[in-house]
Amino acid sequence: MIATQTQILLAARPEGLPRDTDFKLVSVPIPTPGAGEVLVRSIYLSLDPAMRGWMDDRRSYLPPIQLGEVMRGLAVGEVVDSRDPAFRPGQRVAALTGWQEYAVLPAKELTAIPDEVSLPLALGPLGMTGMTAYFGLLDVGVPQAGETVLVSGAAGAVGSLVGQIAKIEGCRVVGIAGSDDKCRWLTNELGFDAAINYKTTDDLYAALREACPKGVDVYFDNVGGPLLDMALGLLNFGARVVICGAISIYNATEPPPGPANYLSLLVNRARMQGFIVFDYAKRYGEAVAAISKWLAEGKIEARHDIVEGLENAPSALLRLFDGSNQGKLMVRVAPEPEAKVP
Amino acid sequence: MIATQTQILLAARPEGLPRDTDFKLVSVPIPTPGAGEVLVRSIYLSLDPAMRGWMDDRRSYLPPIQLGEVMRGLAVGEVVDSRDPAFRPGQRVAALTGWQEYAVLPAKELTAIPDEVSLPLALGPLGMTGMTAYFGLLDVGVPQAGETVLVSGAAGAVGSLVGQIAKIEGCRVVGIAGSDDKCRWLTNELGFDAAINYKTTDDLYAALREACPKGVDVYFDNVGGPLLDMALGLLNFGARVVICGAISIYNATEPPPGPANYLSLLVNRARMQGFIVFDYAKRYGEAVAAISKWLAEGKIEARHDIVEGLENAPSALLRLFDGSNQGKLMVRVAPEPEAKVP
Repeated sequence: MIATQTQILLAARPEGLPRDTDFKLVSVPIPTPGAGEVLVRSIYLSLDPAMRGWMDDRRSYLPPIQLGEVMRGLAVGEVVDSRDPAFRPGQRVAALTGWQEYAVLPAKELTAIPDEVSLPLALGPLGMTGMTAYFGLLDVGVPQAGETVLVSGAAGAVGSLVGQIAKIEGCRVVGIAGSDDKCRWLTNELGFDAAINYKTTDDLYAALREACPKGVDVYFDNVGGPLLDMALGLLNFGARVVICGAISIYNATEPPPGPANYLSLLVNRARMQGFIVFDYAKRYGEAVAAISKWLAEGKIEARHDIVEGLENAPSALLRLFDGSNQGKLMVRVAPEPEAKVP
Repeated sequence: MIATQTQILLAARPEGLPRDTDFKLVSVPIPTPGAGEVLVRSIYLSLDPAMRGWMDDRRSYLPPIQLGEVMRGLAVGEVVDSRDPAFRPGQRVAALTGWQEYAVLPAKELTAIPDEVSLPLALGPLGMTGMTAYFGLLDVGVPQAGETVLVSGAAGAVGSLVGQIAKIEGCRVVGIAGSDDKCRWLTNELGFDAAINYKTTDDLYAALREACPKGVDVYFDNVGGPLLDMALGLLNFGARVVICGAISIYNATEPPPGPANYLSLLVNRARMQGFIVFDYAKRYGEAVAAISKWLAEGKIEARHDIVEGLENAPSALLRLFDGSNQGKLMVRVAPEPEAKVP
């Protein structure tokens, strides 16, 4: 009998929010690694807003997922079988496994996870989430001590790290989030100077101006839409707008309007810049070292929101778009192995 | 009898295109300089798209012109009377004189024009126009040899210089202009690799893509509007969008839509950056030296479009917005003094 596994394929291109029928759950044989390849068992699968973009048939920084292909996704897990000397069974790794229980990948596409790092941390602050926050804020946003950093999607996995790193850098940090509970978390536990609930604040622009009395020097945008326009209206001379994402428009069925206020860039000699975390691969070590230290010192806190079962990934993905996740969203594909005595 | 002069005041804030009734022509006594001041007679008054923005009551990089104030403007002229040792009568200077025949200004607000520079050149390639093109392209756009530079408003005073400087830097240069005559000038006389008439090209995006087969590395935008969106769609990885102006929307009576395609900045790790030429004041000498050399070598050509009479400034300003000017637009306020034998 051949062992089988579950895969989730892209069955149709979503129009607007993804629906169940855009995915297809199939059972297929577990593949066998060839020379130089490794068989990985996924344990936690990361769910990220960018996945929505990958489902569209549009030129982007990665090719679109083809219909009938396994949904693309990053996971952490363990090596089951290795045909490459660099990896041994039981070793913990991160890789673009896709939405499936097992994946065969070339050894060079795996990243080893150090023993002292928990698997959820390896998907969160010490994984792509942390790399995105670290390089997006520090390399693209270039915050200086005393400046004001405004973050949208501030209670999200990336946004909450961005704000905490900006605090470490000595900035005034203002977050925008979608519930009072999230706002309380930002100010009471993460040390944000202010947090604004964009869903319940009547005059959002006035509230932002009040929370940023000296204007905005860095706007880290995860959201797009009207918030981007408001932030542009608050920019200081020489300000930097970091375009990390635009979750408010990923599911738009008609082209959403652009930032009408973009000439604020001219008036304020400001810049708006996009980035893709993969470009920083050679420098991940620098970020891992810094964030590990901050975690150990208690200067950074990370929340995980773990959904049970690969089959629930499609519905869990929607939680990113309605904002009901609390921290880094991931799916537990399989139980964590028990710690072995070395 | 006290000598009088003509001034043009801002009489009303324009809605849309400025009208005659937004200006008021008055006759006032010629002022007398106090200690440290200089009386300047304007000879050529520069007309610039940015003037339209100054007429609005809106926070910007310069305060709005107040109703009843002399219209703001840069002119070149000669010193008539000086109460400052740095300037002597007959000396040629550039200054923000405003739309008037004579202005009294603090000596420190005047820039001396070297003897070998003609007055029109001192308003064009060797004045703010040239400074804008030089620093906007080289400092903000940072073109590299072999890259593709796309310029909108390419037959305008700034755009035509930008394209020529980009050619000197070894780039492929594509211009967008509003008439076949302008396009011919760009390709046949200025050395642009291609020029596209945006008013008569059916599928403008396809034409731009064809003219930029390797994509766009630097987009120098003088225009805004749909052209900016198209350019965003053609950006290469790491591209730079220079926001110099947005003449297509300066007269908009409702907020025009922003660049819907701005997420191209994310996908392509690109940046969009504004600038104000005044910030480079300390480095003007560097640009003047470079552009003087290029003019002397015949590598740069500049066209002037000279309108006679200060009273015609309001109607001449409109030519910037209908695109009927051919090169740097200026008003001859007074005849040039005859060259004196030293």
